Amino acid sequence: MKALRFHAAKDLRVENIEEIAKPGPGQVAVKNRFAGICGTDLHEYVAGPIFVPSEPHPFTKAVLPQVLGHEFGGTVTAVGEGVTHVKVGDRISCQPLVMPRSGDYFSDRGLFHLSEDLALVGLSWNGGGFAEGCVINDYNAVKIPDSMSDEEAALVEPTAVAVYAAERGEITAGDSVLITGAGPIGMLALLAAKAYGATKVFLSDVNETRLKMARDILPEVITLNPMKDDVVARIREATEGGVGCDKVIEASGNEAALNTGLQAVRKQGTIVQVGLHTKDSKLHWHDVTFKDVDVRGAWAYPTYYWPKVIDLIATGAVPAAKIVTKKIKLDDAVKEGFDALLDPAGNHLKILIDLEA
Amino acid sequence: MKALRFHAAKDLRVENIEEIAKPGPGQVAVKNRFAGICGTDLHEYVAGPIFVPSEPHPFTKAVLPQVLGHEFGGTVTAVGEGVTHVKVGDRISCQPLVMPRSGDYFSDRGLFHLSEDLALVGLSWNGGGFAEGCVINDYNAVKIPDSMSDEEAALVEPTAVAVYAAERGEITAGDSVLITGAGPIGMLALLAAKAYGATKVFLSDVNETRLKMARDILPEVITLNPMKDDVVARIREATEGGVGCDKVIEASGNEAALNTGLQAVRKQGTIVQVGLHTKDSKLHWHDVTFKDVDVRGAWAYPTYYWPKVIDLIATGAVPAAKIVTKKIKLDDAVKEGFDALLDPAGNHLKILIDLEA
Ligand SMILES: [Zn+2]
Ligand SMILES: [Zn+2]
Repeated sequence: MKALRFHAAKDLRVENIEEIAKPGPGQVAVKNRFAGICGTDLHEYVAGPIFVPSEPHPFTKAVLPQVLGHEFGGTVTAVGEGVTHVKVGDRISCQPLVMPRSGDYFSDRGLFHLSEDLALVGLSWNGGGFAEGCVINDYNAVKIPDSMSDEEAALVEPTAVAVYAAERGEITAGDSVLITGAGPIGMLALLAAKAYGATKVFLSDVNETRLKMARDILPEVITLNPMKDDVVARIREATEGGVGCDKVIEASGNEAALNTGLQAVRKQGTIVQVGLHTKDSKLHWHDVTFKDVDVRGAWAYPTYYWPKVIDLIATGAVPAAKIVTKKIKLDDAVKEGFDALLDPAGNHLKILIDLEA
Repeated sequence: MKALRFHAAKDLRVENIEEIAKPGPGQVAVKNRFAGICGTDLHEYVAGPIFVPSEPHPFTKAVLPQVLGHEFGGTVTAVGEGVTHVKVGDRISCQPLVMPRSGDYFSDRGLFHLSEDLALVGLSWNGGGFAEGCVINDYNAVKIPDSMSDEEAALVEPTAVAVYAAERGEITAGDSVLITGAGPIGMLALLAAKAYGATKVFLSDVNETRLKMARDILPEVITLNPMKDDVVARIREATEGGVGCDKVIEASGNEAALNTGLQAVRKQGTIVQVGLHTKDSKLHWHDVTFKDVDVRGAWAYPTYYWPKVIDLIATGAVPAAKIVTKKIKLDDAVKEGFDALLDPAGNHLKILIDLEA
């Protein structure tokens, strides 16, 4: 079958690989439908291997070349021995975390995403979403309702990141929330903040194209461009008592944005750090104490979030499909997908690969 | 009466000022007993005026020269009209926050310490602890039980800072806790962590004298010196699964200590920032996200903490008096108090001025 595999930095190949295997005990075979390209995939492409194992992974044995794609859905085509919670023909969204062995501090607490041994379908597993199909563990295949579209099934993963960020911020009805960074996670965090009850939402980014996209996605959002607007002053003006906003979700991974967030948040407010800072960041750290704030990291999501996130999308509470800017063929994935997303113009948010096109 | 007043940086004077006034309505007169010298007082001495108002304070009208001393206790000698909760002869601990007017976002929520208008007895109020007596608002005089010593009455304020830090960290039974910085707040945080149930406590500091003091104060503490010990490795070795400690209380205001704390804490652990960073600090911020941690500022204390903190000290749960290293006369306050505390040798933690000596 056809698959897109990562061989080395800047070396992605669409090639023919062995057909989908027969699922072993506790496994299922999936015919993939749509798969999203993620920032993590772009990092592998530009600077990998990072998550992709160069030596066989300790327990999945996955190794280069790696089929990428950890944001995808499809249909179950075969089930192995002992599989009971999905059956052939079920439409599923892949929860990509492969659970590490027990005996690990975090795995034993159900926090598989925090284990040092973690593996992911599409990064460190023999198979992934950027292929016609794959074999995954039964618990990686989460059934979706008829009310969820095929495109949405591929958006559960990034939406889970945003939903977890909103929960880390304890965003609740009536909150005023600033999102810094209008990338795919920032946009989904905006929608998640609304779903959790935020009544006043601000979004800051230096890219006007992205800010316009945000207003198309959520007309009520107040967009701010730090190159033109005094973000802190605008937020203070718009919030009760001029104290600043209740919550900030920092989704840019940028030092300046983080400092703006620390200034814009009110005393005893909360800043959620979901964007990954790749360089050490300097902060006016005095204000963490003086403002009595919470700064909370938000890393991935617990695996048990899948049914909740599926429900949030399927019911329309988080209209995740709004962030899709293009659907492409697997053959065009590098040029029309990876390269388009890396274009500094930033005209794309989420690009889906249509595995049936 | 005799008082120590701040006139300007490096200009503290023990001088004769007007006698204790007759208390107005809702006020009480106090004969002071012991008063502690705080880091805030040292900052005023070295680089002030900072909190001390150069222009009359918006609503207390306090202005230079200012009687310092916001950590003190004494005996009520007179009460004004309408005062009912304390009477002449009561022994009290001064809760020094003077409540700002209502209409302020934070005051309206009982969070007086977060108001921009805040005033403090001994910093921005006509009177303070470094004098034979003073007049304060009735709510500033909190009655103490017979089981609390006069010295302890002067330690409620810094203990409230440490207790609030422990609560921000949600320290609970069975926790492993690292305290960075063995100053008075670090030492009190160590005792507070024990009171909240921590079963494994670590303390790091570069000063061996301070580490020895800590072992005298709490023999079970594991002291670590980052100049000699690999703090992170030692903590990982000593904690379940080698994951790091549950909580960190950063009481040094130091960038290196903060980064050590971020490495030493386990994933989903909590770092409380109580030490004030006076310079911008650079962090390996990536790990805030990747480790899914909480970083929580802890600023002062809500005023309603006073009865609880009095109880924690009076019952012996937080043996705060252990941090007192010297008691001195008011006449000797500058040389034996302020200068002794500023000595880089760090031989003193908390020095109390004995107003009856
Ligand atoms: Zn992803
Ligand atoms: Zn103090």
